[in-house]
Amino acid sequence: MSTAKKIHLSENEIPEKWYNIQADMPNPTLPPLNPGTGEPIGPEALAPLFPMGLIMQEVSQERWIEIPEEVREIYKIWRPTPLFRATGLEKMLDTPAKIYYKYEGVSPAGSHKPNTAVPQAYYNKQENVKRITTETGAGQWGSALSFACQLFGIDLEVYMVRISYDQKPYRKSMMNTWGARVLASPSETTESGRKILADAPDSPGSLGIAISEAVERAATDEGTKYALGSVLNHVLMHQTVIGLEALKQLEKAGDYPDVVIAPFGGGSNFAGIAFPFLRHNFQDGKKTRCIAVEPASCPKLTKGEFRYDFGDTVGLTPLLPMYTLGHTFVPAPIHAGGLRYHGAGAIVSQLLKDNLIEAIALQQLECFEAGVKFAQAEGIIPAPEATHGIAQVFREAEKAKEEGKSRTILFNLCGHGHLDMSAYDDYFSGRLTDHHLTDEQLHSGLKDLNTPAAT
Amino acid sequence: MSTAKKIHLSENEIPEKWYNIQADMPNPTLPPLNPGTGEPIGPEALAPLFPMGLIMQEVSQERWIEIPEEVREIYKIWRPTPLFRATGLEKMLDTPAKIYYKYEGVSPAGSHKPNTAVPQAYYNKQENVKRITTETGAGQWGSALSFACQLFGIDLEVYMVRISYDQKPYRKSMMNTWGARVLASPSETTESGRKILADAPDSPGSLGIAISEAVERAATDEGTKYALGSVLNHVLMHQTVIGLEALKQLEKAGDYPDVVIAPFGGGSNFAGIAFPFLRHNFQDGKKTRCIAVEPASCPKLTKGEFRYDFGDTVGLTPLLPMYTLGHTFVPAPIHAGGLRYHGAGAIVSQLLKDNLIEAIALQQLECFEAGVKFAQAEGIIPAPEATHGIAQVFREAEKAKEEGKSRTILFNLCGHGHLDMSAYDDYFSGRLTDHHLTDEQLHSGLKDLNTPAAT
Repeated sequence: MSTAKKIHLSENEIPEKWYNIQADMPNPTLPPLNPGTGEPIGPEALAPLFPMGLIMQEVSQERWIEIPEEVREIYKIWRPTPLFRATGLEKMLDTPAKIYYKYEGVSPAGSHKPNTAVPQAYYNKQENVKRITTETGAGQWGSALSFACQLFGIDLEVYMVRISYDQKPYRKSMMNTWGARVLASPSETTESGRKILADAPDSPGSLGIAISEAVERAATDEGTKYALGSVLNHVLMHQTVIGLEALKQLEKAGDYPDVVIAPFGGGSNFAGIAFPFLRHNFQDGKKTRCIAVEPASCPKLTKGEFRYDFGDTVGLTPLLPMYTLGHTFVPAPIHAGGLRYHGAGAIVSQLLKDNLIEAIALQQLECFEAGVKFAQAEGIIPAPEATHGIAQVFREAEKAKEEGKSRTILFNLCGHGHLDMSAYDDYFSGRLTDHHLTDEQLHSGLKDLNTPAAT
Repeated sequence: MSTAKKIHLSENEIPEKWYNIQADMPNPTLPPLNPGTGEPIGPEALAPLFPMGLIMQEVSQERWIEIPEEVREIYKIWRPTPLFRATGLEKMLDTPAKIYYKYEGVSPAGSHKPNTAVPQAYYNKQENVKRITTETGAGQWGSALSFACQLFGIDLEVYMVRISYDQKPYRKSMMNTWGARVLASPSETTESGRKILADAPDSPGSLGIAISEAVERAATDEGTKYALGSVLNHVLMHQTVIGLEALKQLEKAGDYPDVVIAPFGGGSNFAGIAFPFLRHNFQDGKKTRCIAVEPASCPKLTKGEFRYDFGDTVGLTPLLPMYTLGHTFVPAPIHAGGLRYHGAGAIVSQLLKDNLIEAIALQQLECFEAGVKFAQAEGIIPAPEATHGIAQVFREAEKAKEEGKSRTILFNLCGHGHLDMSAYDDYFSGRLTDHHLTDEQLHSGLKDLNTPAAT
């Protein structure tokens, strides 16, 4: 018997500042563009959608941004989160590698998403915003923002991808419990939704469509703002509390990672754990490999193009520089709903283009197999998204064994799988399959894309 | 905005000993009886079912029993659990009462059950037990024991009540993920199961039937032992880590409870939080009221009889002294599956008979209403079982307000509701109802019961 060892952090060691990687990137991100004029847009163009407090963070070049006391107070409900040395897993894999994981599943929503939901609700509240709209796929982000808006007394309207709304009612119940209004997307309440429904009355929806609806609502209703759970700079920055805590915990363990691994959807999970270590790569000559793991069914980092594209399906957002499969690309309905997004955030895209991070795409059967083994070795059942990181940890641990060399691996266990047991059910009963994209499928969203190149 | 304040405890403050209330009870529990002879049975009679390490704890009169180092190491995965001052809830209820809650939902199984599952697996492993059988209703206990057996490399066979097996597949998937074999009960694999099925081929099963099957398997297979998740003395004792930690945390907060509240199924939840405070009632003249809250659909404490009865439906267990509705009583299928048991443990029954604790029965609509309000005020969605404690907290807080008097209330938030969102769904859509038992229903399990009186 051998189980995880927890590395402790006390409450007053919760970070007091977020780390803003924009201050340290060798090449800055390209500016967002106005899709009409093709010209760079300034912060004021974002004002209909976001409160100024968040817009200023989006464009800030300051290295450290203070976490408001009220946000830190709420973080204390579940932070500091535990860092575990995965001694049970190391033994199971019989590897010389040392494996650590940061566990974000202890939050009230069961994932890392409240780390940004809470400050987003806070800055909206500061500017007297009464209502926020957002989108959600499987529901992790929607439930986290419901939790946060409830605490600050802000109304929340969530556009939930229709297929998840119908098939995964439990996340919807969570959002209702926290007082949010949940609409199946595409809906009849927006022009974007009506347009989609006119063409396809039975549309199962997609994250891109739901974003269009939520953005439209915020843009056309004066008292309403919009919130996004990943992709944007300020969202990624809020998540750095994960890596900053992990850094302190590893220091207590007398260790430092050679490899940092996280699943990749829009970038918030990966940025949260990796950016504080990239800082030391940039500044102190450290050489930690940071690996983003995307699903093979939605491989924007490994098979997408680096260019300007919209964040939503209809084309309402500014054009952002990103690795993208095209904003009309519809990924297969894999269980890791949080990873089914056509593009990557601007910062992560720039880092990948500059070869400062790595990316890999994995099939879901390999991921679930690793997830089940992890649960058996460590006792925690991972969310389907998290299994992508775990599968890559297995590969790195295996490589260490083959080479007979030790190395220290850190990964972000971004959430528990208690709300996703139907996915495990499908896995155990053989209903899950891998997804091999044909060239035609892969280029379906790119071939007619006439947005500007990112140069 | 006002949220919970967490009261911190460091890892080396996890208790080193369990508290055994048997050392301090004014009147000891009555002995278990052999149902054939009506004579008291000794520890050796339990040996076919349990390892001696646990049997010795079952009958021990020692006040403190050391927690093995290996068990404490595993406890560290999720312990110490947080104690929160519920400032958000206090504000919502506008009460002068101070409200604290101990949160056990951070464990890998999402409830307090691993506190006893881990030591039970440990003591079985010590005696080289290769296989354990158990029963589970909605699945909280079964999943906790699966988690523990996986860590110790013990095979586990879980008899899961058929109606839950069919309707709540996610807990089954959790058990499978942790390597357990799950059978729908009644099953064809035991004589008890076959007997029930012969009479009622479509039987939805019950906890009592599932216990019969699990006990029969252990009793008739030499290498197999049996484990129970509540009711028994050693199980209740393992849970005292909850109250012992809460005691330390409240001391740090400079407070002491006037009232301690917990939901009541078989007693482990209630005992876990209340027994360490009852100790101070017995020894130091404290006057903390300890209130067990049972569902109105299964009111053994408030409407049952105090007498000897079987722990299972078929009648395979020794006769135990308990408040009972009769071992053939079948409670309505409420969502708080963990509270649907016909009897109460011997220790709690004796304490209630001696007026040393209080009991109350509540309807499920009041409980769910309180649960939703709690989630909105504090951000944590409670398990349906836990809402029973919360509803009583609301009543006590209301009373404090009416009387214009402060008081300190502590309750055990035994688990999160992430696996029970279908229950909230039913609540929101008006499908839940209260259950008013007729006298005939109430006495259905008692009227032909010819077991000995408990005197």
